[in-house]
Amino acid sequence: MKSYFPLVKSPIKYAGPKSRDPLTFKWFNAKQKVRGKTMAQHFRFAVAYWHTFKGGGSDMFGPAAWVREWNVGSPMEAAEKALQANFEFCQKLGVPYYCFHDRDIAPEGATFTESVKNLETVVKQAKKMQKDTGIKLLWGTANLFSNPRYTHGAGTNPDVQVFAYAAAQLKHALEATCELGGENYVFWGGREGYETLLNTKYSQEQNQFAALLQLAVDHAKKIGFKGQFLIEPKPREPSKHQYDYDTATVLSFLRAHGLYDHFKINVEANHATLAGHTFAHELTVAAAENKLGSIDANAGDVLLGWDTDQFPVNLYDTATAMVAVLQQKGGIGSGGFNFDAKCRRGSNDVMDLFYAHIGGMDAFAKGLLVADKILSDKAYSQIVDDRYATWKSPVGKEILAGKSSLDKLAAFTLKNGEPALKSGRQELLEIHFNDILLSL
Amino acid sequence: MKSYFPLVKSPIKYAGPKSRDPLTFKWFNAKQKVRGKTMAQHFRFAVAYWHTFKGGGSDMFGPAAWVREWNVGSPMEAAEKALQANFEFCQKLGVPYYCFHDRDIAPEGATFTESVKNLETVVKQAKKMQKDTGIKLLWGTANLFSNPRYTHGAGTNPDVQVFAYAAAQLKHALEATCELGGENYVFWGGREGYETLLNTKYSQEQNQFAALLQLAVDHAKKIGFKGQFLIEPKPREPSKHQYDYDTATVLSFLRAHGLYDHFKINVEANHATLAGHTFAHELTVAAAENKLGSIDANAGDVLLGWDTDQFPVNLYDTATAMVAVLQQKGGIGSGGFNFDAKCRRGSNDVMDLFYAHIGGMDAFAKGLLVADKILSDKAYSQIVDDRYATWKSPVGKEILAGKSSLDKLAAFTLKNGEPALKSGRQELLEIHFNDILLSL
Amino acid sequence: MKSYFPLVKSPIKYAGPKSRDPLTFKWFNAKQKVRGKTMAQHFRFAVAYWHTFKGGGSDMFGPAAWVREWNVGSPMEAAEKALQANFEFCQKLGVPYYCFHDRDIAPEGATFTESVKNLETVVKQAKKMQKDTGIKLLWGTANLFSNPRYTHGAGTNPDVQVFAYAAAQLKHALEATCELGGENYVFWGGREGYETLLNTKYSQEQNQFAALLQLAVDHAKKIGFKGQFLIEPKPREPSKHQYDYDTATVLSFLRAHGLYDHFKINVEANHATLAGHTFAHELTVAAAENKLGSIDANAGDVLLGWDTDQFPVNLYDTATAMVAVLQQKGGIGSGGFNFDAKCRRGSNDVMDLFYAHIGGMDAFAKGLLVADKILSDKAYSQIVDDRYATWKSPVGKEILAGKSSLDKLAAFTLKNGEPALKSGRQELLEIHFNDILLSL
Amino acid sequence: MKSYFPLVKSPIKYAGPKSRDPLTFKWFNAKQKVRGKTMAQHFRFAVAYWHTFKGGGSDMFGPAAWVREWNVGSPMEAAEKALQANFEFCQKLGVPYYCFHDRDIAPEGATFTESVKNLETVVKQAKKMQKDTGIKLLWGTANLFSNPRYTHGAGTNPDVQVFAYAAAQLKHALEATCELGGENYVFWGGREGYETLLNTKYSQEQNQFAALLQLAVDHAKKIGFKGQFLIEPKPREPSKHQYDYDTATVLSFLRAHGLYDHFKINVEANHATLAGHTFAHELTVAAAENKLGSIDANAGDVLLGWDTDQFPVNLYDTATAMVAVLQQKGGIGSGGFNFDAKCRRGSNDVMDLFYAHIGGMDAFAKGLLVADKILSDKAYSQIVDDRYATWKSPVGKEILAGKSSLDKLAAFTLKNGEPALKSGRQELLEIHFNDILLSL
Repeated sequence: MKSYFPLVKSPIKYAGPKSRDPLTFKWFNAKQKVRGKTMAQHFRFAVAYWHTFKGGGSDMFGPAAWVREWNVGSPMEAAEKALQANFEFCQKLGVPYYCFHDRDIAPEGATFTESVKNLETVVKQAKKMQKDTGIKLLWGTANLFSNPRYTHGAGTNPDVQVFAYAAAQLKHALEATCELGGENYVFWGGREGYETLLNTKYSQEQNQFAALLQLAVDHAKKIGFKGQFLIEPKPREPSKHQYDYDTATVLSFLRAHGLYDHFKINVEANHATLAGHTFAHELTVAAAENKLGSIDANAGDVLLGWDTDQFPVNLYDTATAMVAVLQQKGGIGSGGFNFDAKCRRGSNDVMDLFYAHIGGMDAFAKGLLVADKILSDKAYSQIVDDRYATWKSPVGKEILAGKSSLDKLAAFTLKNGEPALKSGRQELLEIHFNDILLSL
Repeated sequence: MKSYFPLVKSPIKYAGPKSRDPLTFKWFNAKQKVRGKTMAQHFRFAVAYWHTFKGGGSDMFGPAAWVREWNVGSPMEAAEKALQANFEFCQKLGVPYYCFHDRDIAPEGATFTESVKNLETVVKQAKKMQKDTGIKLLWGTANLFSNPRYTHGAGTNPDVQVFAYAAAQLKHALEATCELGGENYVFWGGREGYETLLNTKYSQEQNQFAALLQLAVDHAKKIGFKGQFLIEPKPREPSKHQYDYDTATVLSFLRAHGLYDHFKINVEANHATLAGHTFAHELTVAAAENKLGSIDANAGDVLLGWDTDQFPVNLYDTATAMVAVLQQKGGIGSGGFNFDAKCRRGSNDVMDLFYAHIGGMDAFAKGLLVADKILSDKAYSQIVDDRYATWKSPVGKEILAGKSSLDKLAAFTLKNGEPALKSGRQELLEIHFNDILLSL
Repeated sequence: MKSYFPLVKSPIKYAGPKSRDPLTFKWFNAKQKVRGKTMAQHFRFAVAYWHTFKGGGSDMFGPAAWVREWNVGSPMEAAEKALQANFEFCQKLGVPYYCFHDRDIAPEGATFTESVKNLETVVKQAKKMQKDTGIKLLWGTANLFSNPRYTHGAGTNPDVQVFAYAAAQLKHALEATCELGGENYVFWGGREGYETLLNTKYSQEQNQFAALLQLAVDHAKKIGFKGQFLIEPKPREPSKHQYDYDTATVLSFLRAHGLYDHFKINVEANHATLAGHTFAHELTVAAAENKLGSIDANAGDVLLGWDTDQFPVNLYDTATAMVAVLQQKGGIGSGGFNFDAKCRRGSNDVMDLFYAHIGGMDAFAKGLLVADKILSDKAYSQIVDDRYATWKSPVGKEILAGKSSLDKLAAFTLKNGEPALKSGRQELLEIHFNDILLSL
Repeated sequence: MKSYFPLVKSPIKYAGPKSRDPLTFKWFNAKQKVRGKTMAQHFRFAVAYWHTFKGGGSDMFGPAAWVREWNVGSPMEAAEKALQANFEFCQKLGVPYYCFHDRDIAPEGATFTESVKNLETVVKQAKKMQKDTGIKLLWGTANLFSNPRYTHGAGTNPDVQVFAYAAAQLKHALEATCELGGENYVFWGGREGYETLLNTKYSQEQNQFAALLQLAVDHAKKIGFKGQFLIEPKPREPSKHQYDYDTATVLSFLRAHGLYDHFKINVEANHATLAGHTFAHELTVAAAENKLGSIDANAGDVLLGWDTDQFPVNLYDTATAMVAVLQQKGGIGSGGFNFDAKCRRGSNDVMDLFYAHIGGMDAFAKGLLVADKILSDKAYSQIVDDRYATWKSPVGKEILAGKSSLDKLAAFTLKNGEPALKSGRQELLEIHFNDILLSL
């Protein structure tokens, strides 16, 4: 079979921190154990099909800057070749999973029927290749935002006929994911929001969106899909306002509509910063409720106001992220770390795809090692534990048990007087952080 | 009694849109009815004690730029004089309510006991003046953020002794509010958040904060306080991250901790924009659940990243805000429109206080008239209603009733084919908006 | 000849403020005089060819949402039909100018030679239609950012071959503009910046860019182009950082490279806010040096971090903009107000193009009336003039004449003592602004 | 003499990267040579008097959270004790410089005459301590923004009497700096801007500001001050808009007003990000014209919209900054690295001052080592050099020499055809960056 990556002759190997060969891992060592799990188990890395195999470096001011070898021929020919490229790439990179939208792997047809047929054809091909290579599907999803019909939303469209169309597309995407053994199914609602409140019935749209999610839950049960449902928050873009603004907003929505038990959160780094949060913050909010389901591992540029979907390289971001992940019982669970990232428009060489993914995997591997140390380093963790020590006193326990009262606490204050302000040691912890980062 | 505003000889009068006298109302006409309620009933305007009577125009790069006549003498003398100024100001302005923090109206003493005593003394004075003038208390609150003891939070402080102190202060602030007939009690948690995740136990702090709110609910019941509890969201400042980030986050938190039934939201315009939302958005989110409890009526500068607390003058903001308010059944209910706004540091003349409040009241009054028209204007509202018309069809009703399925909707789609993209008419609605704004 | 806008049977008419017909002007009255010039002369409105005739509502998450009737057929057939649509549209709208990029009006060919030929063919057609209709060219420009060859910049490309290609394209675009009697030629350098400093030689790129501009100046002289050269600042997007960041940055660059006398600024509203400035600010900075050359009259959404290119409707923005324009001697001069704006993706009806442009023209016309009043209204302008009155004293004149010294001013201060802080009357001026806005 | 830092018994020592003792340097080794200069010579670190000795952790929502031992007693007693603390701190830290505003080191008096006298008294004390300790003054400045008289600006005040007052204060601050052998004098114009354009005459204020700077230049000559004049850009805060927005804006202003030869730029990291730039960008812009005069070495939080003045710890920021510094001939020259940073409000322990400064010095020392390697590492620098190689060809040289023409370049393009898009290798360079960061 034709190789699309002939310059990479064998799987990328771990060569250790001293290597300067960009086609080796310096930190990611799949079998290395951290806290009882291998790195492979911690991360469950996945390649994002759309960026890696279907992206061309286009932006709002220019069309695709490149066409890959596998994206030529008729749409269905290109679909098959792109699949081959995907599995070759994952194998050579040593990444066990991939993720897709229905319209990435199979082209939209002239009619709904044709689209369904295209998808079914490709799913058969993918299923075989999965079996041949051992590469698995982390998650599938339906693209309910690109086609012009979804301009005013899919589930939240003012036109019920569009809602129905979205539901129909969702049905087949879910069935495809099920057929391919996908471990998760993701909702990202880029047009589930509004462009202007001037023409929008907010409550109506909220109810519609909840209805769509409930339909998916019902259908999963019906077809025996056992995977996890995930919602991926993003505050805006393409919509001016997107209803899944951030983790807290999604959790609120799920609770309000009786959907809380059926969904977890897929946190994306770049979406976090667009919402005004750090990546670590969003992970922490999700993990605090054991709702961190999966991660879109990329990076944004905090000085830019749009989704740049860059590959993650900043070790502060990966290390603080991994602290949050390690603090959720079971870590990332049946989710994974999907590289929802694309090479810059100016990085048009196919080898850039390898450099970028390797860099991202290394950045997270190093981040894991730092996070592990942060959580176990006495000089560091003792400072944090000491801050909260008084909550283990009787009065602290009583408060958290819901057995105190304002009157009791007023009496306690009259007796104990003015509390002292104690240093939170932010600067010292930041130094320890750098020490750990550089000393490992 | 001494007058602090001798240049304003009598209450500000409504003079109509053609007036250019800045000491008249051009749009706010207290008795004018809109949708069956007077303007006075729609707004229930309130003056913010802290900015208007205790502010001096200080900022991070300079101390107070002025000292008002009423803020001289011993702390307790100044407290009484400021009260007199407040009631004179409200009367002359024709504003029926005021709002305060405990430490605005009464100075903090050397000990907790002394602080309590100071508060009790001032509350007695205020109660008498309320009776004499008919001016009422819209809401009270405790300042749990200024004193250095609260640097690491009040309810979310890592030190239980600070939590207890906050609880004790809250008890007395709540009792003071009750004693003065306050119709609401507000929580704004400026330090209830974190400076850095490096030293923070997020879940622990969330639980602490919920405990504090529950203690307040319990105490209100105990003392017979019948007012409404409100939480005021703000994303950051002074904290790097504040837990009450925005309306959705607060609603999520309340639901997660069993507090949902006890609280409504106090939406502030400037806090909305700091969180990346429009003022109208935050109002809409709250109103959609009938949780819009009250409003801090001010304005921010969207090109600035901090809370500028300016007086509201932008008619687009006030009109879209009033659309959201009118759409909540009962409107603002037992809340009101509190001017949480301050004159610029450069506006040091006592007359600027009058200009600013009059301008704000007029801006909202005009906004109300525009909003009323928007909601009733056929050329406008028909466009919006038509967008959602298909949801009244059988298939639409079935979906919203939870009786559809993906299979049914796939069949529907196969039968009905590709939906047409229909114009959302944003530009046309924007023109109608301007037409209405200028034609009234 | 075929009509592309058959629903608009005759030119849009001025019907006055009471009209609610969206196909009439309420404020724009071409012949109405303000400060001795007609509205037509003040604005010299232009339609942006790319958005209006070549845009399809695409965004980063979806392809074009519509294809206009005139954009079908072979590329050269579509080019001619789009020209016809342009001239019909301008005539019916009553807009005297249009603006284009070379690649908007003529398709890029398979080779450079073919591209040149295409452009020449279309220019001939356009010249004839200009003559037939009286519609003129406000400005032309070369698209040096869309084609993948310009990914790393045009003038600032690290590859001299790309620079040469850009220069060649610029030559023909400039000649086409000259041939069509274009009154201006614009540079907007969307890729003249960098994606990362890690791979960038900043000074080298600055020098390259200056060289390109000088080449254009030289060529204009050679071919007898008498129009004005303009640079349009934008801080970022598509580049992470664009060298023409804002007006001040461009003026600095022009001065540093000896190009100052040859260029003026084309200020775009949406680019201003992306750079952290108000539209009025950027206009003021340019006008202060008589360097305000032309305007891209659109609007952004200040809560969004990308270029939304919306139609202008906000009267605060248009009125403050017009204050700045009126303060430049000669106003907009040989520039104009180009609607660099597009209908929302959801506004796919061809009639939306009319609504949007009419709304924009009305918003600026109303803004002009307000600005005129602001500058002549005694209650308003006297406050501002009084603030600066002391600079007309001898000591003030001496300072501005460069004849004072720190020693003299220290002596003056010892004699005169502490100056009083005088109110800047911001709130009062804001009220007057609203009064004027609503009373006209 | 009393020690204010008794827990630090001797100067902080270099202990190497393996040390975990927070009272040692891990990377800063004063005598270690990099590119022929010692680290001490590269950095010329300075302590910021205002934050370190006069700050109390106050913010907009709370007063000072601590009072240092040296800030008690009468204003003049506190001034002398703070000086002692400063020199003890600098000595123990091993920092050779400090920086001040006039009002930091000496209290403002009841009259101008008294203020002058206070300053003179303190300058005498400081001069003696400088001599005793060998600690020197990097720069002085006048605080022309805190006092209410400067609310509407100092040099840009609409009231000429305030301008005169500012000039008088500037005279004495400049003379004090001269007397103490200050190597630089800095202008930071926090109120030199506007709150609203509604009440502002922009050109008038620009001219005033230029006049003030010229007066300072003239006075320096008169008194024989040989130090360097610096302007520190900041886009906003406290003003809504500050005229010294960023480096490019300041350079433009200086050129426009004939002041270019007399000033360099003092770049602050946090101000850079507030203006939408990276720290490295601002340094690069200044260094490109050999105008990088000095650095305010701090860090901001890019998710916050105000000046947080944090201590620098992020190694990506320090390393990219040092790349820019090393690229200016002579590096930082007679400027230095001033820690314009403050401990968080919650870091109230006096030891936090040591941790924070040590962390900052180490972060920059490590950054220097990384930058040195970046610039010499073949795997890295070759990629960048190769990108620009074609500019050394004849056609490239001709363009840069100003000897080409559009016609020539069109002919070149016709001959050479379509250029290839070459990868900019951003992702690969980012990996090399991490490799270098972690491998040193």
